[in-house]
Amino acid sequence: MQSLVETFVAGDRGALARLITRAESRDPEFAKAIDGLWPRVGKAYRVGVTGPPGAGKSTFVDGLASSARARGETVGILAVDPTSPFTGGALLGDRIRMRSAEGDEGVFIRSMATRGSLGGLARAAIDAADLLDAFGFRRVLLETVGVGQAEFDVVAAADTVVVVLHPGGGDGVQAMKAGLMEIADVFVANKADQPGIDRLVDDVTQMLELRGPRDGWTPPIVPVVATERRGLDDAVAAIERHREWQTTSGRLETRRRARRVEQVRRALEEDLRALLHDELGWSAWIGQEVARGRAPASVAREALERLGAGLRKAAPAAGKPGGPQAPAR
Amino acid sequence: MQSLVETFVAGDRGALARLITRAESRDPEFAKAIDGLWPRVGKAYRVGVTGPPGAGKSTFVDGLASSARARGETVGILAVDPTSPFTGGALLGDRIRMRSAEGDEGVFIRSMATRGSLGGLARAAIDAADLLDAFGFRRVLLETVGVGQAEFDVVAAADTVVVVLHPGGGDGVQAMKAGLMEIADVFVANKADQPGIDRLVDDVTQMLELRGPRDGWTPPIVPVVATERRGLDDAVAAIERHREWQTTSGRLETRRRARRVEQVRRALEEDLRALLHDELGWSAWIGQEVARGRAPASVAREALERLGAGLRKAAPAAGKPGGPQAPAR
Repeated sequence: MQSLVETFVAGDRGALARLITRAESRDPEFAKAIDGLWPRVGKAYRVGVTGPPGAGKSTFVDGLASSARARGETVGILAVDPTSPFTGGALLGDRIRMRSAEGDEGVFIRSMATRGSLGGLARAAIDAADLLDAFGFRRVLLETVGVGQAEFDVVAAADTVVVVLHPGGGDGVQAMKAGLMEIADVFVANKADQPGIDRLVDDVTQMLELRGPRDGWTPPIVPVVATERRGLDDAVAAIERHREWQTTSGRLETRRRARRVEQVRRALEEDLRALLHDELGWSAWIGQEVARGRAPASVAREALERLGAGLRKAAPAAGKPGGPQAPAR
Repeated sequence: MQSLVETFVAGDRGALARLITRAESRDPEFAKAIDGLWPRVGKAYRVGVTGPPGAGKSTFVDGLASSARARGETVGILAVDPTSPFTGGALLGDRIRMRSAEGDEGVFIRSMATRGSLGGLARAAIDAADLLDAFGFRRVLLETVGVGQAEFDVVAAADTVVVVLHPGGGDGVQAMKAGLMEIADVFVANKADQPGIDRLVDDVTQMLELRGPRDGWTPPIVPVVATERRGLDDAVAAIERHREWQTTSGRLETRRRARRVEQVRRALEEDLRALLHDELGWSAWIGQEVARGRAPASVAREALERLGAGLRKAAPAAGKPGGPQAPAR
């Protein structure tokens, strides 16, 4: 692992790819590696792109990447795709390989598919974004299909979130239902040359009015035809406006800090879950109590009472009233 | 709470509705109430219905409910709808009120919308299904839009899972991506009078062949026109075949037990999370460490080490090699 980190720092793309794989497989050594790399993290600006299937997210992300390259920025792209265990990530993998950016050293593309728990995917994807950042890419693009909690978590970890919609199919209502309206900083109304575009823009405008502004920022809606790069400059300008607004208002720092706290919480919860169920044998005990016919709520309560006693001992300084308390060493 | 349980047992529908609300709000008294009602749980057969938006799930569920009523069964329906915090569950609520079953004492319909954490919704929905079961409904229908992890968890808690698809829009591929193929016991190809139905049936058949049989059951694909109740009897027959196959093979009992274990795990994890972050002050500590600029992975590791020490003490009999170990009292 140590030599892998060294070749990573020296700028070896193969080392970057292998470290992302370690993040995906939750190699226990990985946490230490990212620890060492942490001072290098924080220079990249992260743009999350999400939206319903078929909205044209990949084409739009390709456009953003080209635009950033034209400005001289290096670009790392993470495409997160929820796939079933029996198909793997083949569909997305095939598509990725066809992308135009191939052969450009200033671009790195990685696709990540759902493996095992969905929570694990979000964690690995955010670790991978940190790695791209530490490697030196100045722009990190996170692309997900906005249908599940894990993809939602990934895209919510971006500095600016772009939601891509397209006309027809009741996208407006679906976007609202999926909670995408809550996390959008910029809307892209893609396929703006197709019928129904006015209706889409109206729907989104209306929903935004219904919602009211959040923290003083109202997400703009930018019509785009991603396949022809039409409107792409406007979309880039909207992202930059959001970036500047966040930077000058200090919100970027607040947002990033909240993201880090969330990252710790998620990692801690996942690891505690593994510890409890696998190593400490609580799953076996739960199975046994359920087999005896006990009510799930009663079994859960007993486990919580016992575990709570242990946890209170682990954090003796906490639990008192008052401000933030560091658990005693 | 005690008198609420008594009126519930006496068959008061208002008490049922209020207990579901208590489950949703995670009233701490609720766990004890469901404990007391537990011997009454287990007589209902639970059918989960899911699929992409626009597939016609609600119409199909209405059809299933009518069919069950015609056979003399009582029916409880839970419609779980992922909605954004700022719209509430209004869209679904409106639709529910228009349903044909209104006025029939043998039917109870409840819609549940996303409030707070998605994990919390799955937990509350499964508690609500247990309540409908305990109340005496012989058939419980769980309807969700199959787009997120929470809805997935809800529908996976059914005895038979029906996935409703419709022609066009690449539904087959989307269903596969969303993992719906993994949990389907019966497929309904709805809107079978529309163009593209053959393609849809072919796609699903092909994916099922690719996957191979699971545990000796191959999900049938039933063409249906739910709006005209065409094919509904075939769908009901397919569900009954699956029920009989599970009952005679003993798989129903295994499946239900696994569901109970999952229910305990979910409740325990959610309560532990609340205990850790809110009561024991770990969130404050995490925020403090992150603000100091420490790497998230490092903060998480330190917290895990400390908490792990406490948890090991709480389960002294566990952690040894060998079979299932009950933590000592």
